[in-house]
Amino acid sequence: MASRLGKPSVSVCKNSQAPITCGVTMVLSWFLVLSLVSGTGFAYPSAGDTNSNRSDLYPEILRDETVARLNELGKVSDADGYLVRTFLSPASVRAGKLIQSWMEDAGLRTWVDQIGNIHGRTEGMNASAEALLIGSHLDTVIDAGIYDGPLGILCAVSALKVLKINGNLGKLKRPVEVIAFSDEEGVRFHSAFLGSAAIAGILPDSVLQISDKSGITVQDVLKENSIGVAEESFLQLKYDPQSVWGYIEVHIEQGPVLESLGLPLGVVKGIAGQTRFKVTVSGAQGHAGTVPMSMRRDPMAAAADLIVLLERICKDPESYLSCDGHCSGFTAESLAGSLVCTVGEISSWPSASNVIPGQVIFTIDLRAMEDMARETIISELSNRMYQICNKRSVSCIIERKHDAGAVICDPGLGSELKSAAYSALKKIVGDVQDEVPVLMSGAGHDAMALAHLTEVGMLFVRCRGGISHSPAEHVLDDDIWAAGLTLLEFLDQHVNQHIVSMIDPIAYNMCI
Amino acid sequence: MASRLGKPSVSVCKNSQAPITCGVTMVLSWFLVLSLVSGTGFAYPSAGDTNSNRSDLYPEILRDETVARLNELGKVSDADGYLVRTFLSPASVRAGKLIQSWMEDAGLRTWVDQIGNIHGRTEGMNASAEALLIGSHLDTVIDAGIYDGPLGILCAVSALKVLKINGNLGKLKRPVEVIAFSDEEGVRFHSAFLGSAAIAGILPDSVLQISDKSGITVQDVLKENSIGVAEESFLQLKYDPQSVWGYIEVHIEQGPVLESLGLPLGVVKGIAGQTRFKVTVSGAQGHAGTVPMSMRRDPMAAAADLIVLLERICKDPESYLSCDGHCSGFTAESLAGSLVCTVGEISSWPSASNVIPGQVIFTIDLRAMEDMARETIISELSNRMYQICNKRSVSCIIERKHDAGAVICDPGLGSELKSAAYSALKKIVGDVQDEVPVLMSGAGHDAMALAHLTEVGMLFVRCRGGISHSPAEHVLDDDIWAAGLTLLEFLDQHVNQHIVSMIDPIAYNMCI
Repeated sequence: MASRLGKPSVSVCKNSQAPITCGVTMVLSWFLVLSLVSGTGFAYPSAGDTNSNRSDLYPEILRDETVARLNELGKVSDADGYLVRTFLSPASVRAGKLIQSWMEDAGLRTWVDQIGNIHGRTEGMNASAEALLIGSHLDTVIDAGIYDGPLGILCAVSALKVLKINGNLGKLKRPVEVIAFSDEEGVRFHSAFLGSAAIAGILPDSVLQISDKSGITVQDVLKENSIGVAEESFLQLKYDPQSVWGYIEVHIEQGPVLESLGLPLGVVKGIAGQTRFKVTVSGAQGHAGTVPMSMRRDPMAAAADLIVLLERICKDPESYLSCDGHCSGFTAESLAGSLVCTVGEISSWPSASNVIPGQVIFTIDLRAMEDMARETIISELSNRMYQICNKRSVSCIIERKHDAGAVICDPGLGSELKSAAYSALKKIVGDVQDEVPVLMSGAGHDAMALAHLTEVGMLFVRCRGGISHSPAEHVLDDDIWAAGLTLLEFLDQHVNQHIVSMIDPIAYNMCI
Repeated sequence: MASRLGKPSVSVCKNSQAPITCGVTMVLSWFLVLSLVSGTGFAYPSAGDTNSNRSDLYPEILRDETVARLNELGKVSDADGYLVRTFLSPASVRAGKLIQSWMEDAGLRTWVDQIGNIHGRTEGMNASAEALLIGSHLDTVIDAGIYDGPLGILCAVSALKVLKINGNLGKLKRPVEVIAFSDEEGVRFHSAFLGSAAIAGILPDSVLQISDKSGITVQDVLKENSIGVAEESFLQLKYDPQSVWGYIEVHIEQGPVLESLGLPLGVVKGIAGQTRFKVTVSGAQGHAGTVPMSMRRDPMAAAADLIVLLERICKDPESYLSCDGHCSGFTAESLAGSLVCTVGEISSWPSASNVIPGQVIFTIDLRAMEDMARETIISELSNRMYQICNKRSVSCIIERKHDAGAVICDPGLGSELKSAAYSALKKIVGDVQDEVPVLMSGAGHDAMALAHLTEVGMLFVRCRGGISHSPAEHVLDDDIWAAGLTLLEFLDQHVNQHIVSMIDPIAYNMCI
């Protein structure tokens, strides 16, 4: 994908394995590709300071209302006591309706498409110009935090609401469309990006037949929600690349880098590629008391052996690769700096404490910054896993369930986001000594799918302790404000400044 | 417990680790304590032979009807497509009613007690004499075979039915009571022997508050089934030891020894002690893509490490014990010959493929022939497990959920069962060269609980491939016949032979 602005203006350092000490003693080789970090303290103004409540910075909308809506949306769950919203679940449908109402409140025309995405669009001054898309996802993992996904949707809605209030919505030089994607996490169907992949035109129609745990297919779920896919094809949902200018997404970092740097915002350079596997280990089911250890073909012990192997390889890939430190297209050292492997799900059959299981099934999530490196490690891992299975006389099936190649974000969009973030932080704080850092993302995002359609750019927002996919996930209110103001600064570049801006006093009074 | 008949008449060899070759090349040190095995071929008469259909051996009842009832009971399940009946589940209640009707068909007076056991009793000639109890369990594991438990109940019912038919039921010198225990496997509440422990008077009232996975307590289940425990105490269910003569139980071996010897029946010398644990590993929940391997506190990788350790220790305890080959009260060698450890259940939270789990829970089932050895290995295992948890900075809680000491069966009852089995086999086959073998049991049985009340004896029946706790579990029809005839021979010792026997022609015609 060619850069929109030609040669990248973002200077990029190589991944480094040297620990960076910023008051936090952590190994931060992890996805940290900083252009320049001076690492001085960053502090928001206190409540009494002039900047903290400047009405032209719209804290009531970009901070307070966004935070209130995040909290409201965080209560919309399919479970009691914890947050979960999966693809087109009852809670997801309720969440979609809330988002739709907030989009309308921001002056956007809204609709729900045939994969359950919620759209809010303003045509600006030229409905036929290439549209800027801004999005993130409304679904969650199980026992989720409230920011992962919704933060990006609601920051965009708030920024557009400000444009409506200050009279600039109609003066946008191009259409702007906010999309709340219906599925990014892939919890229900183990196939991530259902929403964004459909828009990007890369969602195969075979997805319609995938079943969830209770045997309900994607097609069933769409029908349940009175959504029919015309001619049973998702291709109708694909946006014409000629009609799209670019895609940007605000998301929580979900990692510890920004916090360790003491900075609220970062621009994303690229997103790690990922592969998900389902591993089925089958052995000889039997009575826990009567089969001697030496006669067992126990899939549980085998699965444990495989999981220990996985961790060993991913912690120290250099010791397991036979390419003498430099494999084709990547170095073992760079792989070691980005490789992460996770077993999140496991189950046994028949699952009774006094029965040697007949079968154990578990998942593997494997990510790396370089696609070649990922393939190499997968090949090495599979070979070693099959060796263990053979040695233990159990049968192993390693199924590849999901693949997403690494994505390099557009340097031009990155540069614009960086300038917008710097400008936003400067407006709030008054003086900013630190440059906005550039990071790599270990987490997958809808931008990965959208990269098949258009240039993409992402803005990361700091989260406490780097924690995500957990109810302990937290983002500072002021960081949310900074993210919203960054989007507003970014959008201002697309407003025709020759037309005099005017605040809509009625709309503004309604929101404060 | 003193032997009923004084000095044991069963000669007992020491556990041996030398493989016994009987056509099957397996390590058979496992629980095999043979008095004498000459190992010649054993074969039932073919259909045309005189013995195979001798009406005084009651094949129609002891074989054909028992097999038909086992098959009928095997269809009574709480699940579609596989067999499962847990404590007082709807299928267990239906199974209990069937068994009760079959007990009545055998001329027994029946009732259901306050823990859901089904009783069928005949008083014989002297209602106040000590009663012989014969029992096994009606509950199953998940995805069970049809023989584990019901075989013992139905063989006993069939043997008593024969006594009814030949007019000997009323001539029994003592009451005989068949009990179908409501819970032995402990699948639902992780607390095994609910039924037999209540009869033995060792079921603590605290059990009433134990919850199943859906939060329903034992007390709730009893209430649902219109069973109230008076004064909320199980002690009322305890049998007076003075009123009981002894307890015998027929059960499938659930192991490979009898099959490898080519013999259908064996007498049990003792039952391994067992301990069940619930292990809870808690770490730091997080996003699968954003937390570097070096910064993780992953409970899944830790659990895998613990399961691999468990297998290593149990396969080769000698290398992990520091008692120089001879610990107090047992040898590391004898421990190695009997120790078995199983992880049957495992689950993770929140259980999503792209989330590093916050918690992983798994079970451990650990058994050994010697209680001191079991305690020693548990202590060693726990220490090493906590070391791993500390090293990985995860929190581990190892809860002891169930304990049952090893049980030595009564040599006198064993001798009687051995004679009865030999006599039964001789009647069917004509000539038997092999002595009935004496085995140890790795599986727990209701007899373990009953041993707290009275002397116990057990008869093992060969099963195909040693497989149990699996739908592949299978027992030959003729082996079932031999087991039933053994019980009949055993009961005949308790019939007053001075009264002339007479077959009840109506009852006999009804059953053939």
